[in-house]
Amino acid sequence: MKLNIALLAGDGIGPEVIDQAVKVSNAIAAKFNHEINWTPALTGAAAIDAVGEPYPDETHEICANADAVLFGAIGHPRFDNDPSAKVRPEQGLLKMRKKLGLFANVRPTFTFPSLIDKSPLKRERIEGTDLIILRELTGGVYFGVRGRKDNGNTAFDTMTYSRAEIQRLAKKGFEMAMKRSKKLCCVDKANVLEASRLWRETVQAMEKDYPEVEVSYEFVDAVAMRLVQWPKAYDVMITANLFGDILTDEASVISGSMGLMPSSSLGEKTKLYEPIHGSYPQAAGKDIANPLATVLSAAMLFEDFNLTEEAEAIRSIVNKSLAEGIVTEDLADGGKAYKTSEVGDWLAQNL
Amino acid sequence: MKLNIALLAGDGIGPEVIDQAVKVSNAIAAKFNHEINWTPALTGAAAIDAVGEPYPDETHEICANADAVLFGAIGHPRFDNDPSAKVRPEQGLLKMRKKLGLFANVRPTFTFPSLIDKSPLKRERIEGTDLIILRELTGGVYFGVRGRKDNGNTAFDTMTYSRAEIQRLAKKGFEMAMKRSKKLCCVDKANVLEASRLWRETVQAMEKDYPEVEVSYEFVDAVAMRLVQWPKAYDVMITANLFGDILTDEASVISGSMGLMPSSSLGEKTKLYEPIHGSYPQAAGKDIANPLATVLSAAMLFEDFNLTEEAEAIRSIVNKSLAEGIVTEDLADGGKAYKTSEVGDWLAQNL
Ligand SMILES: CC(C)[C@H](C(=O)O)[C@@H](O)C(=O)O
Ligand SMILES: CC(C)[C@H](C(=O)O)[C@@H](O)C(=O)O
Repeated sequence: MKLNIALLAGDGIGPEVIDQAVKVSNAIAAKFNHEINWTPALTGAAAIDAVGEPYPDETHEICANADAVLFGAIGHPRFDNDPSAKVRPEQGLLKMRKKLGLFANVRPTFTFPSLIDKSPLKRERIEGTDLIILRELTGGVYFGVRGRKDNGNTAFDTMTYSRAEIQRLAKKGFEMAMKRSKKLCCVDKANVLEASRLWRETVQAMEKDYPEVEVSYEFVDAVAMRLVQWPKAYDVMITANLFGDILTDEASVISGSMGLMPSSSLGEKTKLYEPIHGSYPQAAGKDIANPLATVLSAAMLFEDFNLTEEAEAIRSIVNKSLAEGIVTEDLADGGKAYKTSEVGDWLAQNL
Repeated sequence: MKLNIALLAGDGIGPEVIDQAVKVSNAIAAKFNHEINWTPALTGAAAIDAVGEPYPDETHEICANADAVLFGAIGHPRFDNDPSAKVRPEQGLLKMRKKLGLFANVRPTFTFPSLIDKSPLKRERIEGTDLIILRELTGGVYFGVRGRKDNGNTAFDTMTYSRAEIQRLAKKGFEMAMKRSKKLCCVDKANVLEASRLWRETVQAMEKDYPEVEVSYEFVDAVAMRLVQWPKAYDVMITANLFGDILTDEASVISGSMGLMPSSSLGEKTKLYEPIHGSYPQAAGKDIANPLATVLSAAMLFEDFNLTEEAEAIRSIVNKSLAEGIVTEDLADGGKAYKTSEVGDWLAQNL
């Protein structure tokens, strides 16, 4: 197969972790006889510095014309504590998601046999966890009208959802549930929010089209609790943009390190793959960040092009690296800590 | 001291857990020579059934004229899956918070020596946790304009905050931090939301008035992760209504049972005390719910009237009951499970 992949390294540790995913993907291509064309493009603070815009049109063209996008991370602390900054890296991320129509963000949470005891949660609570949070990614309060009133003394953001937006996300959720354990949980705050009531109403109306799927409805606060209490109670979860943002970060704790969890973001035409961790600026340039979330995102990419064996090869070499202790410092636990690039090299060579 | 306390038992397990808090408070009053006048009033589904309104004016009068309000829980499943219900119990809760001006919701999270191993989190992660989430309770998306458009096919909610609302909450946060370890964390989503940027801007401007307090700013998604990873990293946290709702439920996992965490809700004039758990309808009427969160809420009440010794007496008898295994089934762990009322009796008798 021939794959054209747009390569958006972004900020902070983005470039370093992306490098390892490229190494591993190239090794896969060599082994399985595929051809990958990588087209790098600017995004985030890096793009602001270069062209004054966190998601330049040129980058959009490259992404829109690629078969898939591999994305690192975005964000820089110099913008975070400056509430008055006019252009911020995150705007690029949001613009990218919106313009590429990436409405379904797939964030799996699972455990690695050799890492279970690294989780802050007890083994018996998490062993065997295998859930997917399907987060709506191009709507909700991330994209509603926002602004100031009363001379800047009042700020507002609008959380908006249309039935159609909910339907297309829920459809993916039902389909995923059909391929898995046929359990779907709709997470909302319908006891307070009108948008959540529309979610519940819309998903309820779709239940009849998937008679085999058992659907439950839970409030986001209760889920924030149960997710760490009994993660095995969940399988496929669908939720709004903001709730998904919070719950997926929380869920990443289960696996033992945020440096491990991959994601895909799917639209009608474009597919994007990225680690769920952020740009981790304190570690940037130090060659210490964990590249596995990005490498596993590349595995999700292969999987989505029906290259299942390739995806499986990546996952099993990752498991092997963990079992053999070829890990970055976040997982080293007193043992030897490998560099980001060393882990990438090891994975590519041992595939 | 003479205390007039409005007693709002509410729905589900509310009446049962409230009964135990009353028993314990009366025992304290007898022991320390106080006089408590309890005035019961209707709220929640119970009030809807009786008078068609979840927070009747008569109840409001009673609360507004009391020295404090002791509250059970609100909510009934018959409303949750009916997105078209016009009157819901939760509206009563929100109306009550708003009309009583209870803008600051104080939700502490701590561990009990004898329960540490019951937490889903490992001992070394949580031992010594002692944090307070100060949740804004009368603003934000809970109270903004909401509704439908496009023939009901689009729903919206508005998240609004004014500088004054943020200031009065943050002031409480700074003051609390001054009495504790002088660390304050402002939790927001300033990389996306305008309301969060106003939070950050407002809190930053207040820093100079509290030069001794070390203030940090973190995104809510990162906090949802770190809160279970290293709860000891936090002390006083201030946050918006919705974020506080989610994070406090999540934090309750640390202590090992949601049935343990108390709260107070403070306004300029009124103070209200309630467990952070909900109405737990599956357990209603069975005399099995854990009453300790409500009993400990009563301890917070005494504390706020400067009856420190009284509050301490409640806390220490609660600790003793836990150590001696006088616990409800959620904590029994194979051992003997006491009834809700038996735990209440034991506490009152052994004070
Ligand atoms: C950087 C930020 C805007 C982003 C989000 O909130 O969506 C991030 O937290 C994520 O989850 O991808
Ligand atoms: C019942 C519900 C409306 C309420 C809230 O969201 O505030 C509850 O979850 C709480 O935290 O007190």
